[in-house]
Amino acid sequence: MANTMMPIDRVNEILSWYRGENPGVLTNLARMLYHGRLGGTGRMVILPVDQGFEHGPARSFAPNPAGYDPRYHFQLAIDAGLSAHAAPLGSLEVGAAEFAGRIPLILKLNNHDTLGDERDPLAAQTAGIMDALRLGCVAIGYTIYPGTAERRLQYEQLQALTREAKAHGLAVVVWAYPRGSGVSKEGETALDVIAYGAQIAAQLGAHIIKVKLPFDYLEQDAARKVYEQYRIPRATLAERVHHVVQSAFDGRRIVIFSGGAINNDENALLAEARAIRQGGGFGSIMGRNTFQRERGASLKLLGEIIDIFQ
Amino acid sequence: MANTMMPIDRVNEILSWYRGENPGVLTNLARMLYHGRLGGTGRMVILPVDQGFEHGPARSFAPNPAGYDPRYHFQLAIDAGLSAHAAPLGSLEVGAAEFAGRIPLILKLNNHDTLGDERDPLAAQTAGIMDALRLGCVAIGYTIYPGTAERRLQYEQLQALTREAKAHGLAVVVWAYPRGSGVSKEGETALDVIAYGAQIAAQLGAHIIKVKLPFDYLEQDAARKVYEQYRIPRATLAERVHHVVQSAFDGRRIVIFSGGAINNDENALLAEARAIRQGGGFGSIMGRNTFQRERGASLKLLGEIIDIFQ
Amino acid sequence: MANTMMPIDRVNEILSWYRGENPGVLTNLARMLYHGRLGGTGRMVILPVDQGFEHGPARSFAPNPAGYDPRYHFQLAIDAGLSAHAAPLGSLEVGAAEFAGRIPLILKLNNHDTLGDERDPLAAQTAGIMDALRLGCVAIGYTIYPGTAERRLQYEQLQALTREAKAHGLAVVVWAYPRGSGVSKEGETALDVIAYGAQIAAQLGAHIIKVKLPFDYLEQDAARKVYEQYRIPRATLAERVHHVVQSAFDGRRIVIFSGGAINNDENALLAEARAIRQGGGFGSIMGRNTFQRERGASLKLLGEIIDIFQ
Amino acid sequence: MANTMMPIDRVNEILSWYRGENPGVLTNLARMLYHGRLGGTGRMVILPVDQGFEHGPARSFAPNPAGYDPRYHFQLAIDAGLSAHAAPLGSLEVGAAEFAGRIPLILKLNNHDTLGDERDPLAAQTAGIMDALRLGCVAIGYTIYPGTAERRLQYEQLQALTREAKAHGLAVVVWAYPRGSGVSKEGETALDVIAYGAQIAAQLGAHIIKVKLPFDYLEQDAARKVYEQYRIPRATLAERVHHVVQSAFDGRRIVIFSGGAINNDENALLAEARAIRQGGGFGSIMGRNTFQRERGASLKLLGEIIDIFQ
Amino acid sequence: MANTMMPIDRVNEILSWYRGENPGVLTNLARMLYHGRLGGTGRMVILPVDQGFEHGPARSFAPNPAGYDPRYHFQLAIDAGLSAHAAPLGSLEVGAAEFAGRIPLILKLNNHDTLGDERDPLAAQTAGIMDALRLGCVAIGYTIYPGTAERRLQYEQLQALTREAKAHGLAVVVWAYPRGSGVSKEGETALDVIAYGAQIAAQLGAHIIKVKLPFDYLEQDAARKVYEQYRIPRATLAERVHHVVQSAFDGRRIVIFSGGAINNDENALLAEARAIRQGGGFGSIMGRNTFQRERGASLKLLGEIIDIFQ
Repeated sequence: MANTMMPIDRVNEILSWYRGENPGVLTNLARMLYHGRLGGTGRMVILPVDQGFEHGPARSFAPNPAGYDPRYHFQLAIDAGLSAHAAPLGSLEVGAAEFAGRIPLILKLNNHDTLGDERDPLAAQTAGIMDALRLGCVAIGYTIYPGTAERRLQYEQLQALTREAKAHGLAVVVWAYPRGSGVSKEGETALDVIAYGAQIAAQLGAHIIKVKLPFDYLEQDAARKVYEQYRIPRATLAERVHHVVQSAFDGRRIVIFSGGAINNDENALLAEARAIRQGGGFGSIMGRNTFQRERGASLKLLGEIIDIFQ
Repeated sequence: MANTMMPIDRVNEILSWYRGENPGVLTNLARMLYHGRLGGTGRMVILPVDQGFEHGPARSFAPNPAGYDPRYHFQLAIDAGLSAHAAPLGSLEVGAAEFAGRIPLILKLNNHDTLGDERDPLAAQTAGIMDALRLGCVAIGYTIYPGTAERRLQYEQLQALTREAKAHGLAVVVWAYPRGSGVSKEGETALDVIAYGAQIAAQLGAHIIKVKLPFDYLEQDAARKVYEQYRIPRATLAERVHHVVQSAFDGRRIVIFSGGAINNDENALLAEARAIRQGGGFGSIMGRNTFQRERGASLKLLGEIIDIFQ
Repeated sequence: MANTMMPIDRVNEILSWYRGENPGVLTNLARMLYHGRLGGTGRMVILPVDQGFEHGPARSFAPNPAGYDPRYHFQLAIDAGLSAHAAPLGSLEVGAAEFAGRIPLILKLNNHDTLGDERDPLAAQTAGIMDALRLGCVAIGYTIYPGTAERRLQYEQLQALTREAKAHGLAVVVWAYPRGSGVSKEGETALDVIAYGAQIAAQLGAHIIKVKLPFDYLEQDAARKVYEQYRIPRATLAERVHHVVQSAFDGRRIVIFSGGAINNDENALLAEARAIRQGGGFGSIMGRNTFQRERGASLKLLGEIIDIFQ
Repeated sequence: MANTMMPIDRVNEILSWYRGENPGVLTNLARMLYHGRLGGTGRMVILPVDQGFEHGPARSFAPNPAGYDPRYHFQLAIDAGLSAHAAPLGSLEVGAAEFAGRIPLILKLNNHDTLGDERDPLAAQTAGIMDALRLGCVAIGYTIYPGTAERRLQYEQLQALTREAKAHGLAVVVWAYPRGSGVSKEGETALDVIAYGAQIAAQLGAHIIKVKLPFDYLEQDAARKVYEQYRIPRATLAERVHHVVQSAFDGRRIVIFSGGAINNDENALLAEARAIRQGGGFGSIMGRNTFQRERGASLKLLGEIIDIFQ
Repeated sequence: MANTMMPIDRVNEILSWYRGENPGVLTNLARMLYHGRLGGTGRMVILPVDQGFEHGPARSFAPNPAGYDPRYHFQLAIDAGLSAHAAPLGSLEVGAAEFAGRIPLILKLNNHDTLGDERDPLAAQTAGIMDALRLGCVAIGYTIYPGTAERRLQYEQLQALTREAKAHGLAVVVWAYPRGSGVSKEGETALDVIAYGAQIAAQLGAHIIKVKLPFDYLEQDAARKVYEQYRIPRATLAERVHHVVQSAFDGRRIVIFSGGAINNDENALLAEARAIRQGGGFGSIMGRNTFQRERGASLKLLGEIIDIFQ
């Protein structure tokens, strides 16, 4: 994709990958693709704030207590010129009216707490399609754990929600996070496993797929043979990003990457962003690395990342 | 409203009038209020193209045959920087995917043809809420004919559609066009009747009300006495606009005005726009006066009207 | 009913007449019976403002333009210490959130405009049960026109709405206004006809019945014979009120009386209130006589009427 | 459209006009566009046999009694290499299994008999979407009578069926036949009226529109002025066909033409086909002129017509 | 929050935190916030009596046998001037009609018995939304056990009930009681766990959140690091209350605290109430400590607690 392409042309090119969807879905994808500082570039940076539910409030917000108030994150996403803000039901109920029309919203439809030490986690559905509509969202979000024992229940819940979402014109964003007894701890970010998760999300009908950055590690024996036989490039992060994007319908699905726990080394984060761009990734979804920083530092970091993606 | 108000403040002020609605409805209202060249001013100009159904294709599009193609009107609304485009089902089906995310869409849910010379017209429902959602619309549109014999059927159809629309986060735009055996031909644009139509639309739950520009004529005897007794100002168009806006919950509903048949005198159209603004109206909805002109002339006229409303 | 009765006892006595209803309906009746300055007396004064729809905005609000804003009426009802406020959908949508919990609300589910001079009027359903619930109302309101040709449609629409309202715990207030080709103009307020209307409303399941004050006139020949044979007292207004209340299940339904068009003679209005009380009526429903007066005068008049009913 | 265009390119070009529809609808449109001797040309000839219901069996089938058996028409359409066969429920129930997969089927969902001589006809719905699915149809068919007094009921029935059909991936074919008290007998085939009917069908969401061949006659005064002012060419049949196609979204909807009553002059029929092609029409829908001829003559005539459209 | 704030202003301030909800929900929240001796202060004391189901009747009511009769608790809540009474279906069925309109009711929609010694308890849904409506309730109540193995089922049941409740204008009160194999016994009232439970309830859409008073204990290793690193104050009960309230959207959700098992030391209970107030808590929900005391003592205790909260 050339930087010299007109914004409308690039958005239209991306939307052409989703010709199976109705204009409502395309419109909501376009609302994200045209929004914020990256509007029209075909890339996006999303602010997800579900950590209060996923990790507990203090672990999430004590580093920057302003974040206890969900409105802080709406304002941060707006001021940083991001593409969208994703959060669970309660958070969106707090800010959706006050910030109506100012930032595209993604309602996280399932969430998982950490009050229990499960080997095979299973998130709970915490909101539904009618909630997404009454809150003015552009998309639903849903996390799958490829590798968890009961992933069948997740895939089935997701397929039912996806069908209903699309009939109502909503886009579908899937967090594909391999976890559970089917994968080792290292395997959760193994290149073959991340690529596999991206493929599963794409096959389940996701429009936007969020994965973790893959390491140069291969989890599955059967896969390793193939990677070695065909010498799939994986030495650099950009190469691994490229392979994951390729694994989601050869780049015809929007794949974005998350960084994970807070990283005090901003240069490392910027290097990751450059690798994502170089590898053909579509952007970043950054939670803790933004809202756990003080607001000024967070806006500065987001600004630099957006500069990279522009 | 002062021009010095910040755009967000003005939009938020308007949205505060709709506190009874869910954030989805507010978001879709905001999408129109933030869009186009008038974004943030609290005023709007909408391009409606339902005349192919209402008057027939040749009467509508022969003056500027490019308009036979529904995509022409999407492009016109986008290029002129308008707030929204309103059309029946078929037209939106043609362009909604191609122009996804580039202009807020209003799906006209009922339409009336002129193959029959009814004294008491009754439009047909030609699409539904799920159509609006699958086409990515921000609002439904519906025309009522206060004064027609069976208006009861219209009001009841509208209230059912309105309830369903709001539950799904869609805004509701009502065309209030007094017609039928209950009003004389002059009465259709009489001040008292236009104001009455605006009130009815507001009571039926409309968020945006479209009326014709009122003349200095009073239709109903019982009303005339009151207008004279209380000396309601009505000599100038601005005064009449003010009274109509007042009749829609004292200005707490967005009321926009339509011009009607093509007027070759552009100065007259600009004078109307100035009177609408002076009287506190929220903008214009212009169909034939735009798309029946050649594209260049149309863009020039719309540009001048928007200049007035800014 | 003795004034010395404890408020709870009197409300409980009234609620005992509705033993066939579920506790939700009783709760919502009680919310009106305990509210405002008449709370606990078993009497009520209600502010209805549907005249904007029924007669047009200027005829309704020009005498006191503050009333163009629906919020004015919420505040008036609150400040006067009334029992409830009744209005159509749009008006309640404007104020229900802002005044949440401060005045019991009745959603008028049908309304009729006067853009047409029908001999046999038929109001349109303009809202539904889910609207009443989402707006926090205690009751639905519905107008029937006994005497109109198609009253069957009205009674049937009312019965369906009543059944749904009661299942959801909402109370039902019926405006019984004889009109149409079945009654003469004088007959609309004839004693026999008003009493008949009250009976029909009661039989249709109304909890609260609103009628006009009856005149000493008998419309129907068959009825006149009986009134004369049994010498039903009807010379005074109090006697006629008593007969109407008797006609609604011997006083076991709450019957309230409306005054009609504005009456500049406040003493006449106070005399009517005294007659209502003397005849065993349960109170007044006053629209134009309150909101068309200047606010101070309106509050003074309402205060004096409430003094009578206490 | 050039004859040298590759079949896939031409079909894809046509399908691109329907980007608002889901792939199921596109697939069913493509099944017709790729079928038969005209497959890939973008043109089609359809055999409709609903005359048994519309005119009675003897009037329809006595000229060629083989047609009493619905299977005759399946075989005729197959042998002639047509694009599709359209018929009411019962006829399709007779042959759909026997001829499964050999000819695309269109289920006519409404039909009108002539047991009564109504000025304002209104067809009955005689089958539904689930019937079309269980019979393996590619599309539903529906006749509207623009100009009939109660056309509102027709448009509303059609819009409900259309929404359901599209959700189930079925294409929608609309017969737009102006009739009723709103048009004169000549007006039924007037150019302005036929064009108007095509526009209405398009706005109601039709994918394929069937109209009668228009005469050089203008019915509506308001339209005539426009046709004369803008000198819309209408002297030749090809010019009139062109205008009708233009009136259906500037040629972005498939418009096909029917011939009407049997015409013994085959040269006239061939001339009509040439004019349809010359004017940019998409083909013919021929009932009585085919099945009322003896089978050999019918196949010969259809062969010659297809030759013209290739 | 200043004590000098006008009651309406304080209630409106609290309601402004729920702008995402419809006026019906706001009205029912306001009904509690305006009710009883604490009406208008923004604080509330609620009487919950579900112990008969949860612990068995004798364990619950033998200390004060008057409590075997559900009506005793209605009367107690009324006489003490409380904000609301919460109970399971059967109890409310006993008293809802008799005490209609005199105390806001919360229908506990799920309950758990102790006929079994589960490590991972799971309450049963014992009533539904239509029960809440037919009983005249202002809210539904629901208990979640963060930490129980199958909490996913609870969260999903709650989200479905919450969506339906809100659509019908009912408020949602969530008891967030960490229990089960995911937490230790001490962990059930650990500060980090209680705060986490409050966050989960808020994210699930709760309007009012009931938690236990937290101890100065931290359960989760990952959390302990954060509490220590950021020196979150937790030495005093008031500090811990503050942190829990902060964890529920920075104080933008009503969080109330329960005392647990009977405490004969009234001074300790009053000290707890003072700490709740000092820490910014919104009040208490007291069951066994009130109804297990003799009525006079109970009223005295409640009176003193309310004095603290005023």
